[in-house]
Amino acid sequence: VSRNNLKVVLASRPAGAVGESNFRFVEAPVADPREGELLVRVDWLSLDPYMRGRMNEGKSYAARVELGEVMVGGAVGTVVASRHPKFAEGEKVLGAFGWQRYAVSDGQGLMRLPDPRLPDTVWLGAAGMPGVTAWMGLRLIGEPKAGETVVVSAASGAVGSVAGQLARIAGCRAVGIAGGRAKCDYAVKELGFDACIDYKAGPIDGPLKAAAPSGVDVCFENVGGEILDAVLRRVNPGARVALCGLISGYDGADIPIRNVFLLLVNRVRLQGFIVSDRMDLWPGAMTELAGHVAAGRIKYRESIAQGLESAPRAFIGMLKGENFGKQLVKVS
Amino acid sequence: VSRNNLKVVLASRPAGAVGESNFRFVEAPVADPREGELLVRVDWLSLDPYMRGRMNEGKSYAARVELGEVMVGGAVGTVVASRHPKFAEGEKVLGAFGWQRYAVSDGQGLMRLPDPRLPDTVWLGAAGMPGVTAWMGLRLIGEPKAGETVVVSAASGAVGSVAGQLARIAGCRAVGIAGGRAKCDYAVKELGFDACIDYKAGPIDGPLKAAAPSGVDVCFENVGGEILDAVLRRVNPGARVALCGLISGYDGADIPIRNVFLLLVNRVRLQGFIVSDRMDLWPGAMTELAGHVAAGRIKYRESIAQGLESAPRAFIGMLKGENFGKQLVKVS
Repeated sequence: VSRNNLKVVLASRPAGAVGESNFRFVEAPVADPREGELLVRVDWLSLDPYMRGRMNEGKSYAARVELGEVMVGGAVGTVVASRHPKFAEGEKVLGAFGWQRYAVSDGQGLMRLPDPRLPDTVWLGAAGMPGVTAWMGLRLIGEPKAGETVVVSAASGAVGSVAGQLARIAGCRAVGIAGGRAKCDYAVKELGFDACIDYKAGPIDGPLKAAAPSGVDVCFENVGGEILDAVLRRVNPGARVALCGLISGYDGADIPIRNVFLLLVNRVRLQGFIVSDRMDLWPGAMTELAGHVAAGRIKYRESIAQGLESAPRAFIGMLKGENFGKQLVKVS
Repeated sequence: VSRNNLKVVLASRPAGAVGESNFRFVEAPVADPREGELLVRVDWLSLDPYMRGRMNEGKSYAARVELGEVMVGGAVGTVVASRHPKFAEGEKVLGAFGWQRYAVSDGQGLMRLPDPRLPDTVWLGAAGMPGVTAWMGLRLIGEPKAGETVVVSAASGAVGSVAGQLARIAGCRAVGIAGGRAKCDYAVKELGFDACIDYKAGPIDGPLKAAAPSGVDVCFENVGGEILDAVLRRVNPGARVALCGLISGYDGADIPIRNVFLLLVNRVRLQGFIVSDRMDLWPGAMTELAGHVAAGRIKYRESIAQGLESAPRAFIGMLKGENFGKQLVKVS
């Protein structure tokens, strides 16, 4: 079978906000898999904020994407040809296939979808990397105890929504921060947050005080900047801040942490973490998260962009908070 | 015996930098100890940066000093009268006697000097609260491993000098930051730091890169502001920042943490701590530190102000870095 691949490559590094011109579409014939390889047709591509960091020249979480290279990305696909002993044609797999229609793999880092009873996309969201990120930040850094107050920024997003629901499962008061009334309503009514603050509606200090009357014990931070500043003004002694993301500063703006004296006085522990540092914890976390999803204890929502051609625009929108829930691209 | 007490009380709360007018001297007759109490003549008063926080209206590490109250402070004194079963006249004791010549105590929180072979003042310095602070920040947060690089700000001070020497004892490269050539020379030649950077000689980025060629694994932070910013620009993945003090911001200036993205990318753990939170660790830490001092592995230097009357000026000077080593007041 002769197939044509379509790839999205990094055309230039963004100076500030990402634009569509930073990407380029490249068509190329698909190579047949060699002995020990398999060919995957990408069905679903995950778009995640960490990808913004990979577009920069400098050091980020991990290796940057080089100019002309395919953009990195987790994806779910279907094996369409295999000369690999462990994967058969027709199987659905999860892997770092990138922003493209087809990927050749030697099987490293590839995983069969763990539970066919759940939707394929859950492994890119609530039971995948974003969910494991939420799980890891809460378990390793947040360490929420029943009765404590956990504040989650970007609360309706792929990571934040799971962080908030895990906080509720742990017996905590979950307070979300999100942009817009619709996202806040969703966080409270669908996801079960105890309260959610719309940061677009004005300064959040007052609403945060009302929503977290006993102060903040855990902050799961995805945004940074003014939102983190406001949360730090309400931290309790011994509070923990899981620094997961700083989407407000991904375009290069300086977003200092203010209220540093409060970090000292309240003996706050603030820790950055990256989910790929602890691959040993992924299997257990995915199993636990999938169980919560199957039982309806963790809910999620998806924004789906149609076709690989829409990936750049969807990614740019996501960085501005235009998505609602987990951002995916339906590739095939 | 009729004795007159002299006390230094808080006259007003500083608006910005502390001035002598924020203090007032009060004379008063000394009350005789009642049953279960003892009277202590204060010999040595310790001056420490944390006292600045206690002068503020707002929340600090602990309860503020109220207007008209004696300034808080650790001290070494001699029991001059006792109706307490556990303390006898003539014994030397360590306690929170405050800025005054005499103190009445019910024995709570009082400690006989643990080892008469060491100088009395060591229990206010290297083997006392400042030393335990250094010990705790390194052990609980810094967790230095042999071969790592530990940066210590205010390196010649009571806390920093012990932190650096403990880092050396742990097999680490110790890099100090201090104000002025004399303090830096002392840190390297006397205390055994591997290098020390004079922040008054210009921007520290270049010297820090030279002094910490493998990057920074642990930061023991006493200062904050530009010094912490520069250190964060050099942190290695997995670095730990023990946030012990922020003397650059004690007068109320906003001293934000910049380079927050580097905290995230490098999975830095930044944690504020307060030595009084873990009183359970003090006895072991003091014993260990006293052993290091006795063996000559930990050295220290003292700035001694003569007479209680000099306490306000000495305190103000210490906040500006005018002291050299542990600041004490010889009260009696």
